[in-house]
Amino acid sequence: MKKLSILTILLFTAIGFSQTTDEEQLKKVYSTSLTNGQSYAWLDHLSNEIGGRLSGSANAAKAVQYTKTELEKLGLDKVWLQEVMVPKWERGGAEEAYMLTDAGKRELQICALGGSIATKQGGVEAEVVEVKGLEELEALGEEKIKGKIVFYNRPMQADLISTFEAYGGCVDQRYSGAKEAIKYGAVGVVVRSMNLRMDDYPHTGAMSYGDVPVENRIPAAAISTNDADLLSKQLQKNANTKFGFTMYCKQYKDVKSHNVIGEITGSEFPNEIIIVGGHLDSWDLGDGSHDDGAGVVQSMEVLRLLKETGYKPKRTIRVVLFMNEENGLRGGRKYAEVVKEKGEEHVFALESDAGGFTPRGFSFDCSDENFAQVESWKKLFKPYLIHYFEKGGSGADIGPLKNDHIVLAGLRPDSQRYFDHHHASNDTFDAVNKRELELGAATMTSLVYLFDKYGTVKPKKIKG
Amino acid sequence: MKKLSILTILLFTAIGFSQTTDEEQLKKVYSTSLTNGQSYAWLDHLSNEIGGRLSGSANAAKAVQYTKTELEKLGLDKVWLQEVMVPKWERGGAEEAYMLTDAGKRELQICALGGSIATKQGGVEAEVVEVKGLEELEALGEEKIKGKIVFYNRPMQADLISTFEAYGGCVDQRYSGAKEAIKYGAVGVVVRSMNLRMDDYPHTGAMSYGDVPVENRIPAAAISTNDADLLSKQLQKNANTKFGFTMYCKQYKDVKSHNVIGEITGSEFPNEIIIVGGHLDSWDLGDGSHDDGAGVVQSMEVLRLLKETGYKPKRTIRVVLFMNEENGLRGGRKYAEVVKEKGEEHVFALESDAGGFTPRGFSFDCSDENFAQVESWKKLFKPYLIHYFEKGGSGADIGPLKNDHIVLAGLRPDSQRYFDHHHASNDTFDAVNKRELELGAATMTSLVYLFDKYGTVKPKKIKG
Repeated sequence: MKKLSILTILLFTAIGFSQTTDEEQLKKVYSTSLTNGQSYAWLDHLSNEIGGRLSGSANAAKAVQYTKTELEKLGLDKVWLQEVMVPKWERGGAEEAYMLTDAGKRELQICALGGSIATKQGGVEAEVVEVKGLEELEALGEEKIKGKIVFYNRPMQADLISTFEAYGGCVDQRYSGAKEAIKYGAVGVVVRSMNLRMDDYPHTGAMSYGDVPVENRIPAAAISTNDADLLSKQLQKNANTKFGFTMYCKQYKDVKSHNVIGEITGSEFPNEIIIVGGHLDSWDLGDGSHDDGAGVVQSMEVLRLLKETGYKPKRTIRVVLFMNEENGLRGGRKYAEVVKEKGEEHVFALESDAGGFTPRGFSFDCSDENFAQVESWKKLFKPYLIHYFEKGGSGADIGPLKNDHIVLAGLRPDSQRYFDHHHASNDTFDAVNKRELELGAATMTSLVYLFDKYGTVKPKKIKG
Repeated sequence: MKKLSILTILLFTAIGFSQTTDEEQLKKVYSTSLTNGQSYAWLDHLSNEIGGRLSGSANAAKAVQYTKTELEKLGLDKVWLQEVMVPKWERGGAEEAYMLTDAGKRELQICALGGSIATKQGGVEAEVVEVKGLEELEALGEEKIKGKIVFYNRPMQADLISTFEAYGGCVDQRYSGAKEAIKYGAVGVVVRSMNLRMDDYPHTGAMSYGDVPVENRIPAAAISTNDADLLSKQLQKNANTKFGFTMYCKQYKDVKSHNVIGEITGSEFPNEIIIVGGHLDSWDLGDGSHDDGAGVVQSMEVLRLLKETGYKPKRTIRVVLFMNEENGLRGGRKYAEVVKEKGEEHVFALESDAGGFTPRGFSFDCSDENFAQVESWKKLFKPYLIHYFEKGGSGADIGPLKNDHIVLAGLRPDSQRYFDHHHASNDTFDAVNKRELELGAATMTSLVYLFDKYGTVKPKKIKG
């Protein structure tokens, strides 16, 4: 019995010690982020000194150089650029739109969707057909659509708690609206902005013409939620109301750009790689502070916080700042290609691309065994009000890394305000709260620390 | 065995049915709040049509009339005003402050603390003694303080996750700073604003002279966090730097005001009263949208949502809009006095006074038995990301109702941005997000529904 007691005591001491260490490490991480963080200053520079960073733009190139230089200052083991060819599209100039009412010409807030062609010189003017989505478009058919501008006006569903779910339920109108409307002879497309708030900001975002030849393409734009309601009301008054818009956008040949990568090489298992990332590119209307300047600086901060708190990773921890998430995902695909070529083993990948708001937790794409391990860590996060640990999607840039054993995860901040700013001219630095950004960085660092310390659970065939 | 099986089935059916009903009711509540809510429109009026509602002001009286009228429109069983005498203090005019540096006079952002006396005509100018709190003041004593202006500059602690905890650790400087400095012969007091963010807004708030006679009182003000750092740096350069300020505030005699009350009378237990409330008064610098316009309209919305979703309360559900939380708590005290006089039995009281941000849960002041019941409801809130159910404080206005069996609770929204706006000129309507406000109202309604349906657990002596 005496032996057993000592063993029990030793066992409890060991467990107690280990728990305390994790608790202490998380406390150090959060405290350092909140009192001596770097993320907000980095975001200030990205947003206010550089600004919007559309793929292929001069600003995107500046952001590559800036973040590379800043990573070099951290004293990482390696910092490098990974070449990737990206699309280059330009807005070309401020768009204009109007509707013709009995009271005269009423101007509307509009912006071209990313990838749209320009209107012909002098603009497009035509009658409008309002639809609630692609199915209604198909039902109306060529007879009703030919020669008209299609107005997609299905709003985001307000009673969904996750605004990302509401976005997912609407974004087909923006992405495929033009491609589908072309089939029925439409001359243009205008979409209600993907925004749950009623305001005057038009929101851009990616759209695709699929394999429609260039000469058959039609211009596609978004109008603000207030103006979508206005146009809809006007159409109820007069179904023959004309709508006109002028856009100057241009698609160029692909240009050379880069993913920015830095790493701390693992002390015990250098070939087991953990990555944390966000995307460097942004849309052009705002300065891309929430989407995804926040994810970029939080990811950089993860490596800085690990170093600053004196933690020496067992595994290789890499920050990857992806290029071209918004209109091509070329950076994410390129990174995964190179991983495959080199036969690198990635065990955990974490992306932050849902805004710099108060973090609530993570969404995981992984095996049940790995998810069970994550759930065993939940209590460590409770003091920081991090409570959301669910299976689901992770992030667009890390998606191409998916295999049967990697753990993919996405940071899940509070989503209520995200689509007020997403892809619009008010996605700006002032809309990011310093503490919320820093809490996100600390939350990410804490999870990376735990995966580094305890590793992932590998499937038996690999484990053996 | 057959009998047992049927019993088991019946039992499971009953439990299943009850659970479904609660789930369905919560879903209806959230959905109605988010798609057909009234709280945001009410807040728009309170903030933009009425504005700041300092106790005893014309605006506070307007807010009483407006909310009474709006409650009457809801078709409640009773709506009434409860008279209460409140203090009346006025800022009197825009304050001015400066420090004298080698480069000349540098203006600083200042505001009088609520309750402060005015400066003498032409203002006060004196050398400054910076302290980190009341203890340091005492240590310095009369020799160092006499004839000087005391500058309280202990910042809110940034590494606390709850900003309310950080506020609690600092606010003694604002509340008691003048009273204590008077003992050592100070001629004025200036406090670093209770704000975690570095910005240019000075934040007011209550202060007290205790029993110091009027003729011995000294003026007390707050400066912005940016200016607090500026002044501190200047004092490091030159310890003899002079600081001057001019204020015009005035304290009047108490005036008559009101709590606004409305109720749905309970169908089964009308004598068991549940109240939900916020405070109608606000500070004068902004329009009091977060503090506590949000709590007012959310509380009104609780009764509207119960009606709108077709729920008939068993118990009496009362909304109480308290007057004078900010500088006297007269409304909360008065309400509790009348409850005592009438011998009313209050079983549950819920207050919303922590901003209109995304709700995270509730803090409870109640018996272990009642808390256990609350914990059994947690899973119902999970789809709405409501996860915080902890024992702790509730709300200032409902505090006077405390006894051995009532359940007191406070809504706990995300607190990160709250003190960016609290008591400052940027506590305005545009800083409140519609969905976040509506989620808070739905969360409160859901808890009120559950306490109405299941009642509270009473201590045995009362139960019997």
